[in-house]
Amino acid sequence: METGTESRSERKRKALMLAATELFLEKGYDGTSMDDVASRAAVSKPTVYKYFSDKERLFAEIVLASTSSMVGLVNVISETMGGQPAAEPGLLRLARQFLTALMQPRVLQLRRLVLANADRFPAVGRSWFEQGFERALATLATTFQELADRKLLQVDDPLLAANHFVGLLLWIPINKAMFTGDHRSSPEELERFAVAAVRAFLSGYGPTKPVARPIPATQRRKR
Amino acid sequence: METGTESRSERKRKALMLAATELFLEKGYDGTSMDDVASRAAVSKPTVYKYFSDKERLFAEIVLASTSSMVGLVNVISETMGGQPAAEPGLLRLARQFLTALMQPRVLQLRRLVLANADRFPAVGRSWFEQGFERALATLATTFQELADRKLLQVDDPLLAANHFVGLLLWIPINKAMFTGDHRSSPEELERFAVAAVRAFLSGYGPTKPVARPIPATQRRKR
Repeated sequence: METGTESRSERKRKALMLAATELFLEKGYDGTSMDDVASRAAVSKPTVYKYFSDKERLFAEIVLASTSSMVGLVNVISETMGGQPAAEPGLLRLARQFLTALMQPRVLQLRRLVLANADRFPAVGRSWFEQGFERALATLATTFQELADRKLLQVDDPLLAANHFVGLLLWIPINKAMFTGDHRSSPEELERFAVAAVRAFLSGYGPTKPVARPIPATQRRKR
Repeated sequence: METGTESRSERKRKALMLAATELFLEKGYDGTSMDDVASRAAVSKPTVYKYFSDKERLFAEIVLASTSSMVGLVNVISETMGGQPAAEPGLLRLARQFLTALMQPRVLQLRRLVLANADRFPAVGRSWFEQGFERALATLATTFQELADRKLLQVDDPLLAANHFVGLLLWIPINKAMFTGDHRSSPEELERFAVAAVRAFLSGYGPTKPVARPIPATQRRKR
C-alpha cells in the first residue's frame, strides 16, 4: 500500500513538473502562474502547493531534473568506454550522443530560460551549472584519467581535458542554436561537429602524435 | 556647420543608446519603456523616436554596437600577430584580451539579455551571432591561415581551427559567469584559462608535435 501511494504521488509530481515546463517554455517564467500549472495538470491549486511551496521552487526542480538526465547520459556512455581498446570510438559515441541530447529544442529552450532568469534566481542557475555542468565534467575527467592509465590518452590534468573536450564539441553548435533560435541542425552537421571535436581533442590529447601532419594540397601550392 | 550638426546628432544617438542599455540591464526589456529612455537621457519622447523607430530597433542597435566593438578587438590583436616569429605570444595576447573583454559584467549581462529574448526577437540574436561571433571567427580564421602559411601553425581548415580556439578558451568561463551570475573571475583565473587554452590549441595545431609527452610523476607511479 505504502509503495502504491508513493508511486501515485511521484507520478503526480512528475505530471506537475511536465505541465509547468510546457507553460514556462510557452509563456516564460513571469507569464506562468501556479493557477496555470494547476489548470494544465488538471489538479487543484492546493495540490500544486502540496508538492511545490512556490513557483521558484517548481522552476528549480525542473532545472535540476533536466541536469540529472544529462549527467546520467554522460555516466552511461563513460562506463561503456572502459573495455574498449582505443579511446576514439568511445569519444565519438560520447560526442554524438551528448550533442544530440543537448541540441533538443526543449533542452535549449530550458537552458535559455535559466539564463534569462539567472540574475533574479542565481540559485537556479548555480544549480544548473554545479549539478549539470560540473558533475558531467567530473565524470568525464574520471573517464579520461582511466583512459590515461591505460595509455589510451595523454592527460596531465583530467578535469582540464574534460573542459577542453566539451568546449571543442559544444561552443559553436550550442551558441548558434541559443542565439539564432535555429534548432534544426541536421544530423550531418552534428556528425561533422562531433568528428571535428574528437579529432582536435585527440590531436592534443591522443596517445601518440605525428611529428608533422601532411600539408593539404591547397596550402602546398602556396609554398 | 554640417559636420557640427552631424556630430551633435551622433552624440545624442550614443547618449540614448547608453541610457537604454543601462535601463535594459536594470529592468529587462519588458520593464523598459521608451518614456524611461527619454527620461534617463533627459530628452523628449519624440526625440527618442526621431532616432529609433521603436524599442526593438533600439535594442537591436545596442546589440550590434556591442558586437562591433568585440570584432574590432579581434581585428586589432590579429593584426599584431603578423610580424611575430612564433604563434604562441600572439595567441596568448589574443586569449587574454578577448577573455577579459567578454567577461566584463556589462557584456555578460547584455549577452544574457539577448539570449533571454532570442525567441521573441530572433533577428537580434541572429545579428549578435552573425555580426559578432561569425565575423570574429572569420577574422581569426584569416589570421590562422596566415600563420599556417608562415609554418607557425598546422591548419587544414582555418575556420574550424578558429572555432576550436574560441571553444577551448571560452566554454567554461563564459558559461560559469552566465549561469551562476558570478562575474568576478580573478585575473589569476582568467590567466589560467588563457594559458591552458593556448597550450591545448598548440598541442593540436602547433607547428611541431612531440612524439610523446613526458608522463607526470603522479601517473608514472601507477604504472
